[in-house]
Amino acid sequence: MHRERYFTLSASCPDRVGIVAQVSGFIAEHRGWILETALHAEPPGDGETVGRYFMRIEIKADSLPFMLTEFRERFRPVAEGLQMEWKITDSAVKKRVVILVSKQEHCLYDLLARWQSRELDIEIPCIISNHDTFKGFVEWHGIPFHHVPVTRETAPRANAEIQRIFEEVGGDTMVLARYMQIVSPELCAAYPGRILNIHHSFLPSFVGAKPYHQAYAKGVKLIGATCHYVTAELDQGPIVEQDVIRIDHSDSVEDMVRYGKDIEKAVLARGLRYHLEDRVLIHRNKTVVFR
Amino acid sequence: MHRERYFTLSASCPDRVGIVAQVSGFIAEHRGWILETALHAEPPGDGETVGRYFMRIEIKADSLPFMLTEFRERFRPVAEGLQMEWKITDSAVKKRVVILVSKQEHCLYDLLARWQSRELDIEIPCIISNHDTFKGFVEWHGIPFHHVPVTRETAPRANAEIQRIFEEVGGDTMVLARYMQIVSPELCAAYPGRILNIHHSFLPSFVGAKPYHQAYAKGVKLIGATCHYVTAELDQGPIVEQDVIRIDHSDSVEDMVRYGKDIEKAVLARGLRYHLEDRVLIHRNKTVVFR
Amino acid sequence: MHRERYFTLSASCPDRVGIVAQVSGFIAEHRGWILETALHAEPPGDGETVGRYFMRIEIKADSLPFMLTEFRERFRPVAEGLQMEWKITDSAVKKRVVILVSKQEHCLYDLLARWQSRELDIEIPCIISNHDTFKGFVEWHGIPFHHVPVTRETAPRANAEIQRIFEEVGGDTMVLARYMQIVSPELCAAYPGRILNIHHSFLPSFVGAKPYHQAYAKGVKLIGATCHYVTAELDQGPIVEQDVIRIDHSDSVEDMVRYGKDIEKAVLARGLRYHLEDRVLIHRNKTVVFR
Amino acid sequence: MHRERYFTLSASCPDRVGIVAQVSGFIAEHRGWILETALHAEPPGDGETVGRYFMRIEIKADSLPFMLTEFRERFRPVAEGLQMEWKITDSAVKKRVVILVSKQEHCLYDLLARWQSRELDIEIPCIISNHDTFKGFVEWHGIPFHHVPVTRETAPRANAEIQRIFEEVGGDTMVLARYMQIVSPELCAAYPGRILNIHHSFLPSFVGAKPYHQAYAKGVKLIGATCHYVTAELDQGPIVEQDVIRIDHSDSVEDMVRYGKDIEKAVLARGLRYHLEDRVLIHRNKTVVFR
Repeated sequence: MHRERYFTLSASCPDRVGIVAQVSGFIAEHRGWILETALHAEPPGDGETVGRYFMRIEIKADSLPFMLTEFRERFRPVAEGLQMEWKITDSAVKKRVVILVSKQEHCLYDLLARWQSRELDIEIPCIISNHDTFKGFVEWHGIPFHHVPVTRETAPRANAEIQRIFEEVGGDTMVLARYMQIVSPELCAAYPGRILNIHHSFLPSFVGAKPYHQAYAKGVKLIGATCHYVTAELDQGPIVEQDVIRIDHSDSVEDMVRYGKDIEKAVLARGLRYHLEDRVLIHRNKTVVFR
Repeated sequence: MHRERYFTLSASCPDRVGIVAQVSGFIAEHRGWILETALHAEPPGDGETVGRYFMRIEIKADSLPFMLTEFRERFRPVAEGLQMEWKITDSAVKKRVVILVSKQEHCLYDLLARWQSRELDIEIPCIISNHDTFKGFVEWHGIPFHHVPVTRETAPRANAEIQRIFEEVGGDTMVLARYMQIVSPELCAAYPGRILNIHHSFLPSFVGAKPYHQAYAKGVKLIGATCHYVTAELDQGPIVEQDVIRIDHSDSVEDMVRYGKDIEKAVLARGLRYHLEDRVLIHRNKTVVFR
Repeated sequence: MHRERYFTLSASCPDRVGIVAQVSGFIAEHRGWILETALHAEPPGDGETVGRYFMRIEIKADSLPFMLTEFRERFRPVAEGLQMEWKITDSAVKKRVVILVSKQEHCLYDLLARWQSRELDIEIPCIISNHDTFKGFVEWHGIPFHHVPVTRETAPRANAEIQRIFEEVGGDTMVLARYMQIVSPELCAAYPGRILNIHHSFLPSFVGAKPYHQAYAKGVKLIGATCHYVTAELDQGPIVEQDVIRIDHSDSVEDMVRYGKDIEKAVLARGLRYHLEDRVLIHRNKTVVFR
Repeated sequence: MHRERYFTLSASCPDRVGIVAQVSGFIAEHRGWILETALHAEPPGDGETVGRYFMRIEIKADSLPFMLTEFRERFRPVAEGLQMEWKITDSAVKKRVVILVSKQEHCLYDLLARWQSRELDIEIPCIISNHDTFKGFVEWHGIPFHHVPVTRETAPRANAEIQRIFEEVGGDTMVLARYMQIVSPELCAAYPGRILNIHHSFLPSFVGAKPYHQAYAKGVKLIGATCHYVTAELDQGPIVEQDVIRIDHSDSVEDMVRYGKDIEKAVLARGLRYHLEDRVLIHRNKTVVFR
């Protein structure tokens, strides 16, 4: 992110001969300098005859004779010929990330440290919480803080309010940084592939509430965390990143909570970075992650 | 294992004041030299008032003025006073481990390499398989090989035959080294805490058949293996050891199988070692593992 | 740390028969309830005939009929008989930790998040830095901030000033949280086993400046971080904790710096916790760490 | 490896605009179906103005209208225009791997297990050892075994004999599977980038003899293994793969040796696989590894 300005083309299309040749040929024709390329051919699923091809290409911005608007226009025929779903983004345009938190501090401190040092080179137009615990901390960083309390009764209104704020600030991505509230199906439907959650278990084990208690009861020897896109089905969205940490019989649920925080924040930060750098492409209920 | 002869006392009892004092006092009184001690206090479960205390103590054999028979006699009053479940074993008496395999080679080669170098200082009185794939390989090592075919119809008889062989050779521990057959409830009941299995998933995820296919379908970013004691309920016995390995979108089911082998054999070898060195104490459906 | 009050006895002495019996006998005699015990017998070094025995025992405070002053008095004869080096601490007395930082934020944010949530249940009487980058951030947390600039010429004075502040605030432990300055031999000598540093390499590889550049030049496939006690010899003090993270050919030095931050903060936090909970005993230039 | 036949093009050239377009254009022109592509742009080193571009492309064999001889002819002008160093291999032609061992069994058993199951789909024309420990075991597998004893005096002759055997059997790759002997500079010079070694430390720490003793003396908290190409300078060749495992104060040198075996064999097997699949490209004294 501390490199020169670049464009990121991410795309997928039905697999066939010559995809890379066409796309890289287009770029070369305009003297575009490729910084990084990642490609993946997904084999056909059951009952399918054609697989799907995924790509992510970084191009040095000043190597091209035009900017994104013209790139999009000129590239469109190539993309259409390949039946491509695609987008291209500009590293100079910072993504706008709205963070939702509850009363746990670890992911929030971690994300703000990365933002403060510009490791995460994003705009944080606001932080939303159902508690006011971190109001002062957030505002000290110069970031607006919205307190949107949630009870069982007010949940629909709270979700609508969150959506209103997100729209108002022009959010690109919503991050549930241990937000601990279930996001409404409406919100999920409004922003598919744009809401990231960190779940405190190694999914698909221990879905739902109190996963560390479930892990303790089961006697597992490793606990984990999962960063995934939020969909209407609880903790079932496409997985972006996971990790685990070793525990043993001497560890209480409280110890697990403590160890777990360290992987939660690391996994969320990695998953968010992949997402922000357009490294994640969703395919059915899975992800291609070009690390 | 390359040390001098030692005795291993492993025990558990209701938690109370003075357990360690009594046990270590007994040992000191007889001038026993302690090589290694591990202790664990398990808090009371729901609805209980008293927790449980677990211990494992290695004592240099020649530091004591008596051998195990007299140790057992003299220690009995202490143990009874503490309502202790306990056993003491002798490092000079090799455990007799019967290995069951199917057609996959990785765990078998791995265990035999460890046995060949005496890293696993055990007797292998025989190896049993439902296929004869490894007959020559096993026999070349000087180990008797029993081919006990299993079909849906012959399963009860096959299980009985396995039990007969195990009894005949005086087996201590049975290891299912990717045996791929379900062991009968009778066999499970006959040897509680003595049959170890390696399951090719990070339990409790992906129970049962084809866990790598399940993992592929779910899109997890790590796959795992679990070594557990076999109980009548499939893949639900107390977990002894687990580990995971990172995969990504480019890995097919076949790749997962290949990566998985490496953790399966490592996890089984570690779990088996803990078991053989009396480092594993079962408590309800969980384990205390004094590594 | 969220448990009831307890005392922690940590000790070492020449190995012999009956150490555990004597110590646990003393505790049992006073009806002390042991929460956690860890023991280690270190074999004799080259040319030695006697090894050394290490122990750490947590005792529930209210199970004993006396507090620490009387414990110390009564235990002294036992300890003297065993030629023991020992100390006992009280979980109710918070350790006073002085943190030194430079211009990098990750360890500081991480430690303050842990302190804020009382995961690290310590006092931070002040934070010292050679830059004023984090003055506002630290003071917002209600923690005094001292700016002690350091140049090659002023280093001796700066070190003296740091020592003066540390004494004035009654510091127990000094933490170099990516402080990036060499601490004077005088300071090292004044607080042996009380100054913790985080070095951004997997020691003993890549001692000194710019370890990530060294790692890049060498082409290693994992990079690491090391938490160690500071001694007069640069990056050579006893190692408390280490960890590594995988990299590959596509990672630049800047990428390594970024990945490295995540392990640096995790390793420092773990090492500090072990130290604060009296889990670390130094033996020659190595550590016993009772995790 | 259990897929249909494919060709693997691996190449590097000075970085410039249009490399991917030219290469993928050539392949597309002949209707070649790309299975897998990996690309890497290495930035210019100090004092250089041009970086270097690396690529590895798998093409389905039967998608092309010609075989390798004609591919090479037709591709030559493209490669020359790009000043490319390149090769193309055929998955149907098994690599011939000569394994050198000493008296330790773990890597040998591990490699033969992988070969037996065709996970490693190679020819092993022979195994060479300075001891005859594994003669029977190797020959049972139907693989010729050569006993080439080595003493300080006979080392030059032994190295010449190894080279003679390697040539005679038409070896592609030589694997030092804990061979424990220093290979002569002549042998290193004869097969640059073709001799793989597994060193039992996390290089660059603990070069040379008895690395576990060195690690024990230093008190590190993780030990490692390194797979690298052999060059004339001991343990300094380009690193292909590394990994580590956690230890603690209670682990003796013997314990480290035992843990170490598990990572040695895993790291060697991974490194060898990368090498055999043409995933490793050497650049100066480092490697690009397209995993």
